[in-house]
Amino acid sequence: MDHSKEKSNNKNQNLTDLSSLGEFGFIEHVKKNVKNYNNSTIVGIGDDAAVLKVPNSYSLISTDMLVEGVHFDLTYFPLKHLGYKAVVCNISDICAMNGACKQITVSVAVSNRFKLESLDELYEGINLACKRYQVDLVGGDTTSSQKGLIISVTSIGVVDQKKICKRSGANNNDLVVCSGKLGLAYLGLQILEREKQVFLVNPNSKPDLEPYKELVERQLKPEARTDLINFLDKNSITPTSMIDISDGLSSEIIHLCNSSEKGCVLYSDKIYKDQSLLKVCNEFNLDPISVIMSGGEDYEILFTINSSDYEKIENCDFDLHVIGHITNDKKTYLDLGNGSKSEIKSLGWKSF
Amino acid sequence: MDHSKEKSNNKNQNLTDLSSLGEFGFIEHVKKNVKNYNNSTIVGIGDDAAVLKVPNSYSLISTDMLVEGVHFDLTYFPLKHLGYKAVVCNISDICAMNGACKQITVSVAVSNRFKLESLDELYEGINLACKRYQVDLVGGDTTSSQKGLIISVTSIGVVDQKKICKRSGANNNDLVVCSGKLGLAYLGLQILEREKQVFLVNPNSKPDLEPYKELVERQLKPEARTDLINFLDKNSITPTSMIDISDGLSSEIIHLCNSSEKGCVLYSDKIYKDQSLLKVCNEFNLDPISVIMSGGEDYEILFTINSSDYEKIENCDFDLHVIGHITNDKKTYLDLGNGSKSEIKSLGWKSF
Repeated sequence: MDHSKEKSNNKNQNLTDLSSLGEFGFIEHVKKNVKNYNNSTIVGIGDDAAVLKVPNSYSLISTDMLVEGVHFDLTYFPLKHLGYKAVVCNISDICAMNGACKQITVSVAVSNRFKLESLDELYEGINLACKRYQVDLVGGDTTSSQKGLIISVTSIGVVDQKKICKRSGANNNDLVVCSGKLGLAYLGLQILEREKQVFLVNPNSKPDLEPYKELVERQLKPEARTDLINFLDKNSITPTSMIDISDGLSSEIIHLCNSSEKGCVLYSDKIYKDQSLLKVCNEFNLDPISVIMSGGEDYEILFTINSSDYEKIENCDFDLHVIGHITNDKKTYLDLGNGSKSEIKSLGWKSF
Repeated sequence: MDHSKEKSNNKNQNLTDLSSLGEFGFIEHVKKNVKNYNNSTIVGIGDDAAVLKVPNSYSLISTDMLVEGVHFDLTYFPLKHLGYKAVVCNISDICAMNGACKQITVSVAVSNRFKLESLDELYEGINLACKRYQVDLVGGDTTSSQKGLIISVTSIGVVDQKKICKRSGANNNDLVVCSGKLGLAYLGLQILEREKQVFLVNPNSKPDLEPYKELVERQLKPEARTDLINFLDKNSITPTSMIDISDGLSSEIIHLCNSSEKGCVLYSDKIYKDQSLLKVCNEFNLDPISVIMSGGEDYEILFTINSSDYEKIENCDFDLHVIGHITNDKKTYLDLGNGSKSEIKSLGWKSF
């Protein structure tokens, strides 16, 4: 756990006030650690706008805003991880169009309790994600907030015009495919929240997160499935529709079906349930399928393919799971495997 | 004056809680009033990312974050104007690269004191600016804040590869040119702040803003100089460097000279001083040149041209003023006209 408030109170005398640098001083400070990885980045940070070259393809633009106290809690969310995650969420949105993220802009508003060293930690995570995904940080804005930390990231990507996957392309009888492990990030959050409560009662307690390492890591340091986008490309699979799972499976399948003006049947026994998920669900007395349907922030990819593409994924070494199929009747069902079907309701993330 | 807090307290019973719509309900609500004006907008709001077509040119990306209590005061800043201004600032950044803005994304975080009707006012201004400048709103994010309103706008534009103007291209002996009237937006803010203080002492007072109409309008409803970019294009003028004046002339000329590794001499008697500026400076006992050098938010354009282009602007009907020239010595001077020169210091907007 990172008790950043406490630490910064004790060490304030060694930390650097942002006002001593000013905004432009801070931009220069950030620029020192920014590298460009793409030829398409013509001008990066430091002019009125970034300049990008995009030949013979579509550009993709996505944006997300993260607010302290709403989307994250700095009691247990280290700033470095937060910076990493803020970038990854946005890269994931570009993945969800079957594209490749090439550039990002990052705007940050901070209250005066934040010192330069805290922003450095945040940007360390941002730069780490940029390196990991070979994405260029090309601009942003830095300013004061009245309360807390607010981060707004915009991602810019490219996609071949013939390979673009919207949410709206699913056809009757298409297979519904989902990557990876779902529900883990949500459980990771539950564990961190539980440890926070323990800490608040007894500040000398030392949390043992080792048994929950994978789940906590999925919450604090999720990854975007660029590997899946590459796999699909290499295997000549162009999904008919695609979305990333940021809000939970139920919310995402509803978006996909609504946009496509279709319905679906998903099968609860086809949905992959990881051992670590089952174990912690048991400990917390939670239903694994409910966690998977409603728990967000896994950043896995949900997509549909024509059934003729099934053989291309059937025996692949990739973590893909066919979990259902698209129907014409515009209703989204979950087949519970005991002869009963329940209609899927969106219980995803609520912003307000 | 718009006493929005007071009004909303009285009328709360008729207003719509954002939580009753949810984020996706709100997105649908916003989409109803969004029109697309550009063929390059392939997919707008509603998918994981917007999709843009950019053939044979550079794309330009710029982003700004506006925070209540830091950048604006809702006591006198109507939400509709705020939405308009947030878009205009970002269009101005694209102008400052000699480009044309085609798309924007808008992310908004609001505390629970904001109702749907308030956000509708904000988006009314956003949509008005989009219509005025033929810019498409293609995406965004909407979420809760812990305090106040935060708006993050990202603008996307295009520019011909041969016409791009960076900050860094100024050459020795280039002429320094500035568009329009400077200092007015700053004075408009002083007037609004004064009236706010009067109102706080006597809530029954009715401010008479009529004598200050132009200045207040420059603060509340600035415009981006797309007309200037068109003028330069039609007259085959490609500036050697360019920046928009968001932070005040002193700050911007320093950015431009530093990026170009040059200096300059500006002449205080060549800098255009509008009658309305002189009148209000007199009333407030302010020095007009200081207001112009340090007062921001005019969104005029500062640029440099080769002296061979001088005849193209010399007798034009456009509001352009040659205010100085670029030098090799890396120092930025203001010639005060009485035989003395003072070094220009940046006293622009401070973010922290």
